[in-house]
Amino acid sequence: MSVNADETTLLGVDLGNSLAKVVYFEPEKLGENCHLSASNSSSKAIRDYITSKTTYDEVDGVREESLTIPGVPLNDLTGSLHFIRFPVIELDTVIGLMKTKGLPAKGITITATGMGSYVNRKDFEEMEVDYRTADEFTTQASGLVYLLQHSPKECYYFENPSNEELCRKVHVEKDHLTYPYLLVTVGSATSICLVTSPKDFTVIGGSSIGGAMFLGLCCLVTPAKNFDEAMALAKRGNHKGTVDKVIGEVGSEYLQLRSGYKLPPDFVLVSFGHMLDPEQRKAAKPEDLARSLLATITTVVGAAVGDSVRATGVKQVLFVGSFFGNNDLAKKQITAMQHFVSQGAVNSFFIEHEGYCSAVGALVEHDKVKA
Amino acid sequence: MSVNADETTLLGVDLGNSLAKVVYFEPEKLGENCHLSASNSSSKAIRDYITSKTTYDEVDGVREESLTIPGVPLNDLTGSLHFIRFPVIELDTVIGLMKTKGLPAKGITITATGMGSYVNRKDFEEMEVDYRTADEFTTQASGLVYLLQHSPKECYYFENPSNEELCRKVHVEKDHLTYPYLLVTVGSATSICLVTSPKDFTVIGGSSIGGAMFLGLCCLVTPAKNFDEAMALAKRGNHKGTVDKVIGEVGSEYLQLRSGYKLPPDFVLVSFGHMLDPEQRKAAKPEDLARSLLATITTVVGAAVGDSVRATGVKQVLFVGSFFGNNDLAKKQITAMQHFVSQGAVNSFFIEHEGYCSAVGALVEHDKVKA
Repeated sequence: MSVNADETTLLGVDLGNSLAKVVYFEPEKLGENCHLSASNSSSKAIRDYITSKTTYDEVDGVREESLTIPGVPLNDLTGSLHFIRFPVIELDTVIGLMKTKGLPAKGITITATGMGSYVNRKDFEEMEVDYRTADEFTTQASGLVYLLQHSPKECYYFENPSNEELCRKVHVEKDHLTYPYLLVTVGSATSICLVTSPKDFTVIGGSSIGGAMFLGLCCLVTPAKNFDEAMALAKRGNHKGTVDKVIGEVGSEYLQLRSGYKLPPDFVLVSFGHMLDPEQRKAAKPEDLARSLLATITTVVGAAVGDSVRATGVKQVLFVGSFFGNNDLAKKQITAMQHFVSQGAVNSFFIEHEGYCSAVGALVEHDKVKA
Repeated sequence: MSVNADETTLLGVDLGNSLAKVVYFEPEKLGENCHLSASNSSSKAIRDYITSKTTYDEVDGVREESLTIPGVPLNDLTGSLHFIRFPVIELDTVIGLMKTKGLPAKGITITATGMGSYVNRKDFEEMEVDYRTADEFTTQASGLVYLLQHSPKECYYFENPSNEELCRKVHVEKDHLTYPYLLVTVGSATSICLVTSPKDFTVIGGSSIGGAMFLGLCCLVTPAKNFDEAMALAKRGNHKGTVDKVIGEVGSEYLQLRSGYKLPPDFVLVSFGHMLDPEQRKAAKPEDLARSLLATITTVVGAAVGDSVRATGVKQVLFVGSFFGNNDLAKKQITAMQHFVSQGAVNSFFIEHEGYCSAVGALVEHDKVKA
């Protein structure tokens, strides 16, 4: 299927456990020099609504303007990619909103992926949207290839991740990350794929533990109400020696005994080790608890990655997923952990559009999947 | 060093992050047919105090009478092993108690292991106790060999772990568990050793995540105040579909898509997946939260074990540590998980004295370590 800008509005949607990620393709020549057909007018109305603002308060949605990629190809067209996220629980409101705002559904093509794409199929089909579903791992792979190809300065790593002063984000050229590599997605949960070529990948691992555990527990034990608040707390906090017990606290004799394993004094020996004491529990600061929960997730993810590195021998790891959005802390922690465990042999990479791989892939895949 | 019952009272102590585990050796002929020397009288006073009761309320301590092992050898003597545990934070009270109760320290030999054994060295030395420290992994290995050798019906496994009605605890003969095997200790944190002979072992893995995280977070998000209360909650709770999101909830289309990975409908897809919704958070039952936290720990430990199984090719795993005390739920969960992940290839074993390996080892090692 080739795409006509006058006839369709293209949306790639990834409906995860908590976040909906939307990529909207805006063709450059939309509506110019041509008769305004019904579907074209629909395309224009959608474009005007999406690009006129960056926050959609009705649905707690955000368009991340800094992520916009202009001048990219999609089939026969050239246009811009816009990146929007909103909480999945707002999906009903989004659908209602389209009706309320008079945004017609006809002429809109949505390719959806993620676990929610099946659950919500009926809602979209009732709207007469051209709705398709695509496998989440396939879209992730295509989306990633597309982003690395078409987005300049997409990929980067952290130099000196454990040194706050010397730590530096280093962008790399698109060919720097070579095949094979491990693709680790941390959203609400975690998955690990071995990617051997632009089109070949195998799911080799995963964990139910990921961002949902961080955020869910954070909201239960601190006043945080959403991811940004939880992250803001974690950034101010310190888990070492407050919530978690580190090796240095246990005494120099013990540290000396264990130094054969090259454990530094601030190595976390017991996660939540101080939270068994009722007094310390009562005195625990929300920011330290948030930081400890964040460290817990990076520990679990890091261990699962270490396992996959050993199993495959592959030493390049690319981390994606919404958990890493606005979360340099986790990125640095996970880089430092892989570096420590592998004695420098493993390289950890990240991308700028970390949460949008599958949504981009859904867009790219839209002409390959059955309606 | 050979041991004279009239001259010494032998205690093996494992001072962990939260629990002190004490093994007391009571010689059969203590004080009979011999002059009551000062040290002998000390031995008798200690014995009378320890064996006269099963709860030591002053220090929140418990003697687990059902675990007592009679008629076992220790060097030239024969006697009984008694098993006592109390919270580490009560250690000062225990030391004070010995003075208060007029229990003299002279003639008492304590071999201590665990991280607390170094921190508290001074307190013991000030008492004129014959105090020695021993490496926690060495004592664990010796203690285990001793228990498997001298305690009948020590080792067991669970048949049909995931079927509540058919599940059965099966005791095995002492030679059933052969070398090599993986020894996984879950106390406050987790360690994994590869044991290749009664004396040869290597620490090959571990995690800061273990019982402290379960208990610490349980006390933060439920009314539970200690391990028994947290476990009682977890036993009544259900995490699947309440706190955690399972694959069956996401829709039959998604389940069908993922059934290629042989995931059952109750497979946990997202730990704490339901806790991102403020309404569900408010409605979450303490017992379901406790159960979810327990499942989290067994998931993390299980994944670490799976990693070590793959790295070594060793398919027999023995789980020990206080986390498994009064915790058949975790034992069955971890057995079922290993069974599922390895497609039945991995065998999970447990022992009756799960928390006392290192304390027994400290006792056994007492004549090998320097004072």
